Parts: sequence; structure tokens; C-alpha cells
Amino acid sequence: MIKLAPSILSADFSKLGEDIKKLEKYGADWVHIDVMDGMFVPNISFGIPVIKSIRNITSLTFDVHLMIEEPARFVEDFIKAGADMVTIHYEADRHIDRTVNYIKSLGAKVGIALNPATPVESIKYLIPNLDMVLIMTVNPGFGGQKYINYCSEKIKELKELSNKFNKNLLIEVDGGIGKDNIKIAVECGANVIVAGSAVFKDGKIEENIKMLKGDR
Amino acid sequence: MIKLAPSILSADFSKLGEDIKKLEKYGADWVHIDVMDGMFVPNISFGIPVIKSIRNITSLTFDVHLMIEEPARFVEDFIKAGADMVTIHYEADRHIDRTVNYIKSLGAKVGIALNPATPVESIKYLIPNLDMVLIMTVNPGFGGQKYINYCSEKIKELKELSNKFNKNLLIEVDGGIGKDNIKIAVECGANVIVAGSAVFKDGKIEENIKMLKGDR
Amino acid sequence: MIKLAPSILSADFSKLGEDIKKLEKYGADWVHIDVMDGMFVPNISFGIPVIKSIRNITSLTFDVHLMIEEPARFVEDFIKAGADMVTIHYEADRHIDRTVNYIKSLGAKVGIALNPATPVESIKYLIPNLDMVLIMTVNPGFGGQKYINYCSEKIKELKELSNKFNKNLLIEVDGGIGKDNIKIAVECGANVIVAGSAVFKDGKIEENIKMLKGDR
Amino acid sequence: MIKLAPSILSADFSKLGEDIKKLEKYGADWVHIDVMDGMFVPNISFGIPVIKSIRNITSLTFDVHLMIEEPARFVEDFIKAGADMVTIHYEADRHIDRTVNYIKSLGAKVGIALNPATPVESIKYLIPNLDMVLIMTVNPGFGGQKYINYCSEKIKELKELSNKFNKNLLIEVDGGIGKDNIKIAVECGANVIVAGSAVFKDGKIEENIKMLKGDR
Amino acid sequence: MIKLAPSILSADFSKLGEDIKKLEKYGADWVHIDVMDGMFVPNISFGIPVIKSIRNITSLTFDVHLMIEEPARFVEDFIKAGADMVTIHYEADRHIDRTVNYIKSLGAKVGIALNPATPVESIKYLIPNLDMVLIMTVNPGFGGQKYINYCSEKIKELKELSNKFNKNLLIEVDGGIGKDNIKIAVECGANVIVAGSAVFKDGKIEENIKMLKGDR
Amino acid sequence: MIKLAPSILSADFSKLGEDIKKLEKYGADWVHIDVMDGMFVPNISFGIPVIKSIRNITSLTFDVHLMIEEPARFVEDFIKAGADMVTIHYEADRHIDRTVNYIKSLGAKVGIALNPATPVESIKYLIPNLDMVLIMTVNPGFGGQKYINYCSEKIKELKELSNKFNKNLLIEVDGGIGKDNIKIAVECGANVIVAGSAVFKDGKIEENIKMLKGDR
Repeated sequence: MIKLAPSILSADFSKLGEDIKKLEKYGADWVHIDVMDGMFVPNISFGIPVIKSIRNITSLTFDVHLMIEEPARFVEDFIKAGADMVTIHYEADRHIDRTVNYIKSLGAKVGIALNPATPVESIKYLIPNLDMVLIMTVNPGFGGQKYINYCSEKIKELKELSNKFNKNLLIEVDGGIGKDNIKIAVECGANVIVAGSAVFKDGKIEENIKMLKGDR
Repeated sequence: MIKLAPSILSADFSKLGEDIKKLEKYGADWVHIDVMDGMFVPNISFGIPVIKSIRNITSLTFDVHLMIEEPARFVEDFIKAGADMVTIHYEADRHIDRTVNYIKSLGAKVGIALNPATPVESIKYLIPNLDMVLIMTVNPGFGGQKYINYCSEKIKELKELSNKFNKNLLIEVDGGIGKDNIKIAVECGANVIVAGSAVFKDGKIEENIKMLKGDR
Repeated sequence: MIKLAPSILSADFSKLGEDIKKLEKYGADWVHIDVMDGMFVPNISFGIPVIKSIRNITSLTFDVHLMIEEPARFVEDFIKAGADMVTIHYEADRHIDRTVNYIKSLGAKVGIALNPATPVESIKYLIPNLDMVLIMTVNPGFGGQKYINYCSEKIKELKELSNKFNKNLLIEVDGGIGKDNIKIAVECGANVIVAGSAVFKDGKIEENIKMLKGDR
Repeated sequence: MIKLAPSILSADFSKLGEDIKKLEKYGADWVHIDVMDGMFVPNISFGIPVIKSIRNITSLTFDVHLMIEEPARFVEDFIKAGADMVTIHYEADRHIDRTVNYIKSLGAKVGIALNPATPVESIKYLIPNLDMVLIMTVNPGFGGQKYINYCSEKIKELKELSNKFNKNLLIEVDGGIGKDNIKIAVECGANVIVAGSAVFKDGKIEENIKMLKGDR
Repeated sequence: MIKLAPSILSADFSKLGEDIKKLEKYGADWVHIDVMDGMFVPNISFGIPVIKSIRNITSLTFDVHLMIEEPARFVEDFIKAGADMVTIHYEADRHIDRTVNYIKSLGAKVGIALNPATPVESIKYLIPNLDMVLIMTVNPGFGGQKYINYCSEKIKELKELSNKFNKNLLIEVDGGIGKDNIKIAVECGANVIVAGSAVFKDGKIEENIKMLKGDR
Repeated sequence: MIKLAPSILSADFSKLGEDIKKLEKYGADWVHIDVMDGMFVPNISFGIPVIKSIRNITSLTFDVHLMIEEPARFVEDFIKAGADMVTIHYEADRHIDRTVNYIKSLGAKVGIALNPATPVESIKYLIPNLDMVLIMTVNPGFGGQKYINYCSEKIKELKELSNKFNKNLLIEVDGGIGKDNIKIAVECGANVIVAGSAVFKDGKIEENIKMLKGDR
């Protein structure tokens, strides 16, 4: 079963609740929440108070992608604010086994995100303990970028590791995914698809979700 | 003329546009926008994409308070997103004269914010070039804190410097301001009042603004 | 009443308990505990586990001087380990009003330390809320340095501020204090004297304390 | 020959010399010295002055594990204080070949420590030049944690690299080792065993060492 | 075709133009320009204004090796100053795919440099997009060091990856290369040779270049 | 006696020795050397190897202005390379009394530079121990900027402190100084004038120096 996780980075923040209600209505599986701190990535998006506000209006799974430095500092705040899954960046934490266990100890699911150039083998020992790995298919920081082709290879490598060490591992892809390439990502092994512009473009959330889900 | 600048940190982010429309309707002068990066302050609030979205729905002055490290990195992005006034922290920028000029060169108004313990004299040479000084009356990072009494003294000192060097200087106060102490801040010399909880509490934006404005 | 606070940085760490017992027996008022992290100062001295161990063997006041970056991160650990007074450096914390209140909220006394070149006025607004100010009379990082003469002037300035704003303020001096200059520091206004080498030299703790206390 | 290296992080710092004398008497091979700076790991343990003091009372090998940022800054100080072996973290030094050579040039033995999630292959080119590799079997920062099972696999991989490239390589394990799992670590290839709580628990150093050595 | 890229780190900066003219005259293919910021490496060499000045006097390819933190901050300045090839360090940029593309988008060639201990596989996904990889054969920061033998193995591994994924990849080596070992580097697969002392020693640029080129 | 200290930041680095010879010949008193690391200021200029090369060709005083982070790390290297005066930034060193003494202990003269917004009183305790204070009259990082008028006031304040505490103090100004405003700076109290563009413009070093010196 493939899950669709629309990224609200492309939503209209003046009526975020409304947009999220539509995601829920038209079949989004998760809400992907891109937190950026302006240090790990060159953009400051949104954080804890925004998540708290929208937690009140939906029961969709909150898939929180922390593009922040030393994420362990804020993990507890994000879980209290409503995160169901917390994904941290391999490149932002030198004590990542510790943070993985810390997230689990607080009752949330845990993922690790890899920048495009980061080899999949970097996290090989952690795979049995993870709920998800997020293969970034663009460089994190902005919406609207183009899918990086060599990342398909990384999805396949991860799928093999998943087959060996953790059959339940979720494999999420994020960046430049649309109608045209969603199939490629899925064939490589992805089972959670993040889409931003592709879901929100022209404000046609219903049609866009239908088209993206139809691809699968 | 005293200005009221409600801080949207206390708004409901699931219907931010609606809340801002109410601010506009019930007489708020500015919108105070608290940007936090999790590095300068221990909270990540919201940033560029949120401001972009709400810029489309109101013409109120956007008073953007950057509680972020080395703010010069993002000044241009915030102005493009819709900031009218950009306030940076004295404690976050060692080349603050340069950043002040940079903000002005991009066509925005410029303010400097001072943490509670930071002496007003630290910025004495800059006062003639500033549009505003923001005296923090709580430690930045969170809403809902208590007004720090010794900061009244700082407002007075700033007012004296303003009288001498820049009669048009806006003196903004932020933190723990409500019905009970707004008068004190104004008597000390403040002319822009930030209020968060006091404006949004119990969702009674109209009544709350009326009460706060009535105090003046 | 002048207090003597021997710094265990000059003790013999192979028999620290024994040395501390002697301090207690021969009339030391406090134990001064110099924590260095190798980041704020170029030395790594000792920290939490050492304090825990010695907390079990004495009831002397533990006067913990944190020469560490962003001390708020560890304040709670040091208080749990047994600190009675926690002193943080002005130069190491940009949100020092917040950390001062945090230390007090955890039930400990609070001090601020100033490097030799840091003007006393930097903390003028905080003086009413402090239990102690520590005037460094050498540059922090090592024992055995020579007293910096211009710091006497700073002690006097602090004494004046104390007379005006906080009569109970403790004024501690640390660095290069011995039999010959202790009187000067006290006459300027110091009422807590840190001494390291002067207390432990030649292993004659009893005689050294007697001599130092005799000076007063 | 398996070596036992008790970690004094679990000793009583009020009578450290006494504890170390017991280690010597009851057959410990080395003293393992855990230096933490509060930056690389979230704890500040102890450093140079402590090592200097205990260097005077024992001739046991001092196996100094630097859990500190940019260790090259302090390598010389630690060797002068009495370190025989200096182990630095792969994750804390981007110029690790340089620091390895620097330690050797000062006449000490050199080791590299790997955090649990760090792949062994990261240091493959360095193995011929090393005296030791330390496989962390818990996340560094605290005593009393549980052995991470996947690290056994890393010990085996390291043993294979040692067989190929450096037959004399010492393979040290640190974290959660006790009576029950020491055998596993040794069978995987470890030949230096760090033990903290297991050596010092209930103050029965003699019995504990006997039991641990009996396991081998 | 092997290229010789003399490093001006060993030139005489009082007559740099003259030295460069000689390089040009006597057959150097490129000018290798070692930029050091004192943060990524423990030396500050030279930067933008120096490159601007020498850009006016030669048309040799400027091969700029940025031994600096977060090189993306300065990439544009260096290209405007005259860099033809910009090489950044893998160890200094966590978003290296992004910076690689950024350099290309500005019209320059792009290389990645690897510290001696950094495995070649770290950059395997990037190889098809690169113009060059620089294998450091000494630790960056100073001239006059000795070639690290194990790096020959890395050159071979890189050559294999080049054969598979990017036949046009330039393989540059830098550090301790002279008459005696240039052949080894070339046989392993290097096709761009950086030489500093070997080119400038005794001021005999002509003879030195002849000798180095004669080796090939 | 007013000294003229041309800044070689505006020289031609392809023939730096020649330019410096001209400075010497036409009456420059010192050579001002602007070292920038790309971290304290947003430019990387030049450093140790450049100074070494030009030290061989002139006996003019080398007045080295370190616009770098934590300058103590490199002070010894710069003095060995030929610095006669080492000036560090107040904003870049939290242990500035220590670094001042360190520079003096190595046999060089010592100065402190202040950014435009930094109050003169920040260094009041240090003035008796300094050889020079450098009042930046532009924001450091680039040549060719405009003199900041409010800095004249700072020169006067410093002159008063000099009259009281250190009659021999050199007062240097740097930034935007030319024929038109040199007199103002001198009347305020400056006795060392840095000039870059004003000395090197149109390559007319002789005429430019004559004109600048004629102003005095």
C-alpha cells in the first residue's frame, strides 16, 4: 500500500486548516510537515506553534520532517505539539542512534532522512530499529525543485536493505515528485510519497490527489 | 499616537487569515510577526512561507521581529515575503551597523531589539539611523510570560535618548503587556505595544483590542 | 563577614575527599568549584560526577563557577549534583536574565561572573535579582595567575551598585589572591574570597587558611 | 591476552586514588579515563587536573578516551598530564589523519573511537597506522547504559580488517559490558574491555574484577 | 594528457605576477590556488583580492581549491574574481550536491576534494556530475608535507569509479608530489598534478617544471 | 606626529612588492595589513604566507589588523611572519585581556579594533595596557566604503580616555578616509590614518600620498 503525504510547505498558510481538511477529505494518507530552521537549511519555514494549531483540526498522521540542527533539542516539543512520526537528518546529528531511541522512548515513530549525496550504507546498522527512511530526491530547503535522477538508485539500495533487515520499513521519497515520475519511485521501492506543488498546484487539491493516487 | 501591534504567535494557525482579518477589522495598527529559529531562541515558530501567504490578504504593516542568528542572511527573503519593518536583535549580530544599513537599502524600515539585560547605551550611536527600538520586556522565545519590571527603566532611558537624538523613533515593547500594565509602558515612553495573549485570549479579539486601546 | 572559598582546582584529585575534609576542619566557609569545558576556556577541569562524589562527604556550601558555553544546558544537572550557588559567565550567555531566573526557580543561589575586561555596568539591570557577582581578577582557565590590578576598580564600582540596588549582594573575587593582596580586595568591597594555590600550597592547608583568615 | 580497562567514571571521586590503587592491586590492566566536554557529549566529566593528580600514584597505563570537540586542541595537554594512549572520536575531527599522526609524534599510542551508528569502513585507510580502535557499544556520555546488540557485528568487521591490515590492532569495547556479555564481545574479536559499573558496583572492586577476568 | 598545476602557495607573494608569468612561460598547464580560511584548516592563506589581481595578467586556468567552511557562501565571489574551476571539500559542506550544482550554474567547472582519511565511496553518487575529484595526499593546511602512501590506493579506487561512471573525470592529486613519486600517482590514475615546493624550490621554476614534466 | 598607514587591500597583488617599495619611497609610515577570514567578516583577503613574502622586502612597520574569529589562535603565526603591531577585534574575542597580554608577551605591539556600533567604553579598563585603538569608520570587510559620520564622536571620546589613562595611546582610524575628511579625523584625535583607495587610486601612489600628507 502506497501512502500519499502532501507537504504543507506548498499550502496557503492563511487558511491552512481549510487546506488540511481538504487533504483529509480527498484521500491524503498523511500530512508531511517540513520544519526548517535556517541553519541546517537556508530557509525558515514553520515549527511548533503551527503544528499545535493544526493538531486540533485533523486526525491525519503528522509526519514531521525536521530539517534542523541537532534535532534532539526539540524532539520532545514536536511530539507534544502533535508529531506522530519524527524524521531527523543523518547529516545533522552525530549521535543519531541516541536520538532514534529517544524519539521511540517518547512514543513516536522515527525516521532518518538522507541528503541526496549521502550514501544509504551510512545508516545500515540502524535500519532494523527504524520505522522509516526518507530519501531526499532534491536538496532540502525549498519546494518546487526537480527530482534528482541518481536518487532512484538509492531507493533501490534501500529497498534491498529493507528486504534483508526490516521488511516493515517505510521508504519515503521527497522532492520533485509528480504525476510523471511517481511510478518510477514506487517501482524502485518507495512506499510513502511526499508531494507539495503537485498536490496544491492551481488550488485543485481534489483533482491533484486523484491524479497522483491514480498513478499507483 | 500609540500603535497596537498584535503578535500572531498567539493566533490560531489553522485559520490565520481569519484572525488577521479580525485584527484589521477591530483596529489593530500593525501585525507583529515573531520569527524564531531555534538557535537564537529555544523555539521554532514560523518564517518566510507563512508571511508570504498572509501578505496576500491584508495591507496592515508587517512588523517582523527576527529572533534569529545572523539575521543579515535572511533579511532580503523576509522583505521580499512582505516585511515592512525588520527588527533584528543586538545580541545576534556583531556587525549591526552594516545590517541596519542593509535593511534600509532594501526599502524597509529597521528596528533593533534588546534582550532584557542588554543596556540601552549599547546602541547609542545607532539611534539616529533607526526607525524603531524594541525593548523586550520578557526573554524572547515564548508567549505568555510575565512583564519584567526593571525594563520600565530601560524604556525611560530610551525615551531620553530619543528626545535627544531621534524624535521620530518608535519605541516598541514586547512581552507580558496587558490591560493592567499597558499604561505604565506608555507613560515610560513606549509608543508601539505588542500584545499576544492579551489580544487573542478566549478568542475575543474584538473585546480584547477594545480594552487594550481603551487604556490609552 | 568575609567568606573564604578555597578553589579545589588546586587540590589533589587523588584524595579530594581528604582535602575537602581539611577545608571543613580548618575553617573554609565554602568550596569553590571551577568547572571548565574546554570551549569557553582553554582547559577541561571537572564536572558533574566529581561534584556528586564530594557532595556525599561534606555539608559545606558548593559554590559552582561554570566556565562553560551556554550554561543553561547544564544548570539542572549541576544543581542535582549538589551545587548550592551556580555562577554563570556574562560572556557565555546572551539570554542571561532567563538563565538567572531559571537557576533561582530550581532552588539554588545565583551569581554572574565577569571576565577582567567586561565592564560592571553590563549587568546593572540584573543586580537586584542576583545573590552574587564574581569579579574575575585573572583570565579564567588556569590556577596560579597574577592578580590584575585594574580589577580593584571594578570591585569598587560593583560595591557602589550594591549599595544602591542590592545591599545583600555577595561580591566574590577569584584569581591571584593571597596573603599580600587579600586586604586590598576586601577594602574595595569584596566579601567572598576565592583562593586556590594560596590555600593548597605545600600541602599546608591549616596554616594557609589561618594566614588568609588572619588577614581579615 | 584480553585486557581489562576499568572506567573511573564509575569510581568515587572523593577517594579516587584509593579506588585506583585497588584496581592496580586486583589485576586491572589499564585505567580507562572518560573525558567529556559537554559539547561533543551532553555531560562534563573531568579532565587535565584530575589526570595529573592520579598520574602520581600509579603506573598503570592511562587509556584516555576524549569525548570532546576538535580533540587536537588538547592532545598535548593530556599527554603531558600523563596519557599513555589517546583515543579521539571519528565524529569529532574532520582532519583525523592529521591528529592521529600528531598524537604519535608526541610519543603516545593512538586510538579512534566510533559511535554506535558509525560504519567501521569509515576509517579503513587509517587502520594500519592505529594502535587501537574503540567500538562504542553504547552512545557516549553516561555510564550505566545497556549494550547495543548490533555493535557485535561491528566488532567482527573490525576484527576482519585487523586480520588483513594490522594484526597488532587493539580492539576495545566500551559500554554495557558485564559478566553476562563480556564473552560475546571477546568472541567477536575484542581484546580490551572497558567496564565501569561492572567493576565498581557495590564497592566490591576485588570480587567484580575477579568475576570479569574469570569470564575470559 | 597529464596536466601540471603549480600551487602558488609556494610562490613569492611580493612578486606573484612575475612568478605566474614564469609558470605560463615554462609550461605549467593550470595555476592551483589554495584558499585557506583558518577555520576549515589551521592557516589563512589568501583569497578574493589576490585572485582578482592575478586574473589580469594571465590566461592560465585558475584551479581554485577552497579549504574553507561552507564554501557556498563564497563561490560566487571566487568565480567573479576569476576562478575557472572551483573545488570544495566534502568535509566542509553537508549539502554538497546543492553546491556542486550551484557552481555549475554559475558557469565554472566543479571539483570535490577529499581529505586523506575520507573514503572515495562517500561521493560515489556525485561522480557523473563532477569535472574533477581532488585526492589530498597530505592533510590540507600547509605546503611542504610528505606524501601519504595509502592515498595511492584511493587514486586507484577513484580511477575505477571514473572508468565506470565518468570517463572524462579529472583526477587531481595534491600534496608531497615531486620528481620521485609523480610517476606513482600517474600510474594509479591521476591526470592533474599539483606541485608547490617542487615547482618553486630554489627559485628555479624553469628547471623544476622541466624535471616534473619530464617524469611523465 | 600623524602617521599614514596605507592599506594594501587596495594594492595590486600581482606586484605587491613593487607597490610596497613605492609606499616606502614616497613616505608612508606603516603598512596596514587587512587580514580577513570569511567568518568574522564576509570576505577572505590574505594571511600568513603573503606577509612572510613581503617581510623580506621592506622594513616598514607591519600594522596587522586581524578581522578574524578568535584571533589568539593565529597571533603567534602572524608575529613570526613579521607583524610588528597586532590589532584584534573586541567583537571577536571574549577573553580579550588575555589575548592583549599574549600579544605583548610575544614581543609585538597590540591594538584593539572597534566596529562602528561598539561603544568606546567597552574597553575602558584595557586602555592603559594598549599601544593602539583602531576606530573602524566603516564596517569591516571591504575597501571603498563611505566614512560613517557618527564615528567622529567615538574618536573624540577615545581621545579623552587617552588623555586620562594613556597619553601615548595611538588612535587609528580606518575606512573611507581621503583628502576631504582626513582633517576631521585628526582634529577629533586620530594620529594614525589608514587609507586604501585614497593611496592607490589611479596607481598614483606618489601624488596620493603627497596629497594625504599635505592635509596634515
